[in-house]
Amino acid sequence: MVSDLSKLMDAVREKCPLVHHITNYVTVNDCANICICSGGSPVMTDADNDVVEMSRIANAVVLNMGTLNSRTVEAMMLAGGIAKKNGVPVIFDAVGAGATSYRNIVADSIINRCKPDIIKGNAGEISFLAGVVGGVKGVDSISKSDDIGELVRGLAQKYECLVVATGKKDYVSDGKTLYVLSNGSDYQGCVSGTGCMLSSVLGAYVGANGVSLCSVIAGITAFNVAAEKAEVDCKGPGSFKVALLDCLFNLKSDEMAAKAKVQKV
Amino acid sequence: MVSDLSKLMDAVREKCPLVHHITNYVTVNDCANICICSGGSPVMTDADNDVVEMSRIANAVVLNMGTLNSRTVEAMMLAGGIAKKNGVPVIFDAVGAGATSYRNIVADSIINRCKPDIIKGNAGEISFLAGVVGGVKGVDSISKSDDIGELVRGLAQKYECLVVATGKKDYVSDGKTLYVLSNGSDYQGCVSGTGCMLSSVLGAYVGANGVSLCSVIAGITAFNVAAEKAEVDCKGPGSFKVALLDCLFNLKSDEMAAKAKVQKV
Amino acid sequence: MVSDLSKLMDAVREKCPLVHHITNYVTVNDCANICICSGGSPVMTDADNDVVEMSRIANAVVLNMGTLNSRTVEAMMLAGGIAKKNGVPVIFDAVGAGATSYRNIVADSIINRCKPDIIKGNAGEISFLAGVVGGVKGVDSISKSDDIGELVRGLAQKYECLVVATGKKDYVSDGKTLYVLSNGSDYQGCVSGTGCMLSSVLGAYVGANGVSLCSVIAGITAFNVAAEKAEVDCKGPGSFKVALLDCLFNLKSDEMAAKAKVQKV
Repeated sequence: MVSDLSKLMDAVREKCPLVHHITNYVTVNDCANICICSGGSPVMTDADNDVVEMSRIANAVVLNMGTLNSRTVEAMMLAGGIAKKNGVPVIFDAVGAGATSYRNIVADSIINRCKPDIIKGNAGEISFLAGVVGGVKGVDSISKSDDIGELVRGLAQKYECLVVATGKKDYVSDGKTLYVLSNGSDYQGCVSGTGCMLSSVLGAYVGANGVSLCSVIAGITAFNVAAEKAEVDCKGPGSFKVALLDCLFNLKSDEMAAKAKVQKV
Repeated sequence: MVSDLSKLMDAVREKCPLVHHITNYVTVNDCANICICSGGSPVMTDADNDVVEMSRIANAVVLNMGTLNSRTVEAMMLAGGIAKKNGVPVIFDAVGAGATSYRNIVADSIINRCKPDIIKGNAGEISFLAGVVGGVKGVDSISKSDDIGELVRGLAQKYECLVVATGKKDYVSDGKTLYVLSNGSDYQGCVSGTGCMLSSVLGAYVGANGVSLCSVIAGITAFNVAAEKAEVDCKGPGSFKVALLDCLFNLKSDEMAAKAKVQKV
Repeated sequence: MVSDLSKLMDAVREKCPLVHHITNYVTVNDCANICICSGGSPVMTDADNDVVEMSRIANAVVLNMGTLNSRTVEAMMLAGGIAKKNGVPVIFDAVGAGATSYRNIVADSIINRCKPDIIKGNAGEISFLAGVVGGVKGVDSISKSDDIGELVRGLAQKYECLVVATGKKDYVSDGKTLYVLSNGSDYQGCVSGTGCMLSSVLGAYVGANGVSLCSVIAGITAFNVAAEKAEVDCKGPGSFKVALLDCLFNLKSDEMAAKAKVQKV
């Protein structure tokens, strides 16, 4: 596994995959920059006319429902559909699922109609999608569930895709195997959009390496090891975000692999 | 007053109030992050469907007209109305009031129909709302008015709410008492969106502590004392913004209270 | 030329020109802040109602098609038309021209109907506009063309305006004279939106100094010399962007002029 992670990271930098985002206007700039720092090439566009061509040539499509409106929801459906038809991996970041009925309806539509390759959320969002009520306040998780791992596995089984739940520990499953990842920094919870940023990094990783548990684990681990390094030098959430970009950009693939805390459960 | 400020700051961090924003796409990321650094939990959404539920469960609603379009204006009206009905404090940041007729009409509608608990702007914007012509260029204040304090007091009286005018000195009034606050850094004028960021901080403070002169003074003072500390280490506007986030996050409540420059006039 | 560059920079800081932007939601915050750091006063608004008045009073209008939708495209056309009628310089940043048919149509409309004073893009975008196929992936240039200088000159001749192509070297022409500018840092390619930021700086420079090869060269050189200084202290793309803002803000005009690498070819 360790040497795999290293190779997967090298491949992202070598291939520089094009990651098409339809995402929120709150954290979009950080998504673009972290995508570059991970080795990818980000593009953000949500005009219907643009989406058709971009989703076809992209190496991965990230759909993030942090901020929604009827126009961008249609663009997400369109992009997701075209990507799937063309074999382009689709990552769905279910931001705020469980917080409002509108978000719940949109999440349901995207999952059932676009059939994303990866569904990602914080523990509260994933718990909601798995049928547990009351784990989301605004767009932040307040879930205390200890069996989040099993919810992740169950959701992945149900939708036949990969599922990622982020938090102090991150959980990844394909419906059979479940991994717990333990890298990261507490500062990630103090910066808006670190979840969104991770989705962009995953876009680069599956864009370069294809959809697999390994690709996803490599992407999460690269991001979280960079966060651990960023924490050392920073003075607070502002300088942490700046350092996170620097540290992911400068991270050596063998260092990342050596520091990986990946556990199969 | 000093011990009050300290307690108000502690309460924000303890309660972590949910602050719903309908705001501009220019400074929205900084608003989200400063809200977190002040102790709040930000959410940004402007889809009609979302707004109804978010404004009801939020602890405060921030309406900021930095960038407008017909859809977001409707969302602001909706959010403001629902918040008021549910006793959720509404803060209106009148960005660019006085700059164009459209902004003037929107500002007028929000003030008269939503009846915000707090109206906030720079000296030029507040002067315009108080009936003084010619103090705004683009979205920046060019007001030279020396009697801005009395304009603030008059506007607060007229609309029976709190009014805040920001600048080298900040003025706050409930229509009777007028306070002049003198903390802050010149760098605040060199970073886009420091006014917007302050509104988000005020959202957290009134969300946790209720609407009062004290809540507002505590929020402004926390932000401005953090700015004074940020100025010490920074090298220019770029590093100032980063340091401002760090410094507000790390600011001790007793240090804030001890450094407060609050004067009743 | 050298003393000219210095004076042009001083003039921007003295006049603080109002730069109206209709730009993308990805890099808009960086555009606002770099505009301030260059000496300008940015305003971002794309509501039809607002655009009419803002474009009239602005000292320059920047149209950037990084993210498009039917509403903002109409706003760009409107803003461009009003600016031209009122003698306000228009800068068009053709982000992603060549990447999708929609972008190509929009670029064509803006160029032919608004007749911008300056057309700006990376080497791939400018090559596309000059009739060369295949130089754009997403919104990034993959053009290897060595004769980009002549494409710039030809495009400027065709549309009777100034044309700027950015890259490791930057090319500027009015259709007759061609300049090659060689300042800058490799980190500029590792940060999303450095091209957009340059357009905002150009808005400030032509807003203060009028449209001329000298104004444009001064703006590019100021930005790129600041980038060289930022590169020295930074640790990666995150801290580079922060330092770029600081360094442009602090840059002395005589230092800028002394470091300028401007070559007439």
